[in-house]
Amino acid sequence: MLLGALEAGGTKMVASIGDEHGKIIDRASFPTLSPSETMPALIAYFKQHAIEGLGIACFGPLDLNHDSDTYGYITTTPKQGWGNYPILPELCSALGVPTEIDTDVGAAALAEFELGAAKGLGSCLYMTVGTGVGGGVIANGALVHGLVHPEVGHILLKPHPKDPTPNGFCPFHEGCLEGLAMGPSFDKRWGISSKDLPTDHIGWEIEAYYLAQLCEMAIVVLSSECIILGGGVMQQKFLFPMIREQTLKLLNGYVAHDRVLNHIDQMIVEPGLGIHSGVTGALLLGAHAARK
Amino acid sequence: MLLGALEAGGTKMVASIGDEHGKIIDRASFPTLSPSETMPALIAYFKQHAIEGLGIACFGPLDLNHDSDTYGYITTTPKQGWGNYPILPELCSALGVPTEIDTDVGAAALAEFELGAAKGLGSCLYMTVGTGVGGGVIANGALVHGLVHPEVGHILLKPHPKDPTPNGFCPFHEGCLEGLAMGPSFDKRWGISSKDLPTDHIGWEIEAYYLAQLCEMAIVVLSSECIILGGGVMQQKFLFPMIREQTLKLLNGYVAHDRVLNHIDQMIVEPGLGIHSGVTGALLLGAHAARK
Repeated sequence: MLLGALEAGGTKMVASIGDEHGKIIDRASFPTLSPSETMPALIAYFKQHAIEGLGIACFGPLDLNHDSDTYGYITTTPKQGWGNYPILPELCSALGVPTEIDTDVGAAALAEFELGAAKGLGSCLYMTVGTGVGGGVIANGALVHGLVHPEVGHILLKPHPKDPTPNGFCPFHEGCLEGLAMGPSFDKRWGISSKDLPTDHIGWEIEAYYLAQLCEMAIVVLSSECIILGGGVMQQKFLFPMIREQTLKLLNGYVAHDRVLNHIDQMIVEPGLGIHSGVTGALLLGAHAARK
Repeated sequence: MLLGALEAGGTKMVASIGDEHGKIIDRASFPTLSPSETMPALIAYFKQHAIEGLGIACFGPLDLNHDSDTYGYITTTPKQGWGNYPILPELCSALGVPTEIDTDVGAAALAEFELGAAKGLGSCLYMTVGTGVGGGVIANGALVHGLVHPEVGHILLKPHPKDPTPNGFCPFHEGCLEGLAMGPSFDKRWGISSKDLPTDHIGWEIEAYYLAQLCEMAIVVLSSECIILGGGVMQQKFLFPMIREQTLKLLNGYVAHDRVLNHIDQMIVEPGLGIHSGVTGALLLGAHAARK
């Protein structure tokens, strides 16, 4: 099945052509300017290919309520020109193919669930820890939507006792996960980028502690079988064993499941699809749309 | 449809006969002794009625994985005699009727979702705040299971700056919701029961702050449309407006949905079924089983 995938980000839009197995055969990137500049370029690109469905993995917040008049709109973003923008309706009508949309992290969660690290399970949490922190949730085999969609980066955390900046750096929330654990928090807290911070610096212990709290939350709230941590900060692979160890300490034996107690290395993992979770998820959304 | 409902608790077992609309026509209570003492009494009670299905709302942890050899077992409870006890298989084979099981709070969440405060919505969180703190989660119209089932009482919280005991009183976790906000925490923190604590005591502000963090979490992680707070502590009805106000402060406009911004009084609510959420949920589980 020939499918289109759009990864819509704040700085660039990546358009891809591929199939329902995640195979990509063509790709093009466009800067995110105003909709009137960017959309025609995207539409022209997709029109070159005989796609049967389109999936959009988009920055949020989005209206994902199928009963809403503004289904498939980007809603309250501060990004110039994209607030209340009908990205799904515009692409769907211009291209004349079935189209489905989710958040960028929701699409990545779907891809990891169907084809990646959580394949064969019933639930997972996909998180990206980079310039921001966000997550997509799969429960009972489906992406969790509700009021809107998850914004997992904004849970409040118990501060690490040695964190000199326990309120973090989120403009909305004092002490939320994103504000405490995003990549730029390293520069702001320690005056040095995470890439240059020595591996034995306490900043890493603090980072692992916050991400372990996220993992603990995923286990006790979502009962997630798999927590997939991607994004720029997670390129520091030594964080994984630190996070696993802290998660077990925080749980303290409370969830006495074999997978937690004896296989935490299979529960808290890298993305199975590497950096391709997002585009693969968009292709899967396109395949879902085409099959409907 | 004539159905059986068992509310299995640590101190008593309440057996009810009712229908799929939650109407109860008979009820009996038995002390929770050992299985060999309590189970025959329960079985004899249910055998008096021509029930077509049985639902069990049970203290946890439970094995709810249908593919597991120990599906429907109580697992690691310290309650004498009930550890690794096959409560569903035993009742199902003794009574010869389709039987379904969930946690006590899962059943209550189901009841509130189908017939109570969250009727007509697609998602909710039901929490009980009493001698313990626990929750059941509905997402995309179904009870969330995964690794096991949610244990929402054990999320870690950001401590209130004026809490003299910010680690709380959970034997497993320093600073988890249950340890900080359960009914007995009032006695331990202030030397006075929550029932006797003056309404203007800072203890209530602290309690509201912790429950507001729970609500904030439910909105950003689960995207819950409705958060239902029941249990003994929530009989102090003045807590509801305090929790709503604190939740809005914690969110700080981040989830810009009309329901949050303008109808928080419809989002954070009392149980629509009063104290009958649990038994109603057990009847609904029995109805689900009978229809399968």
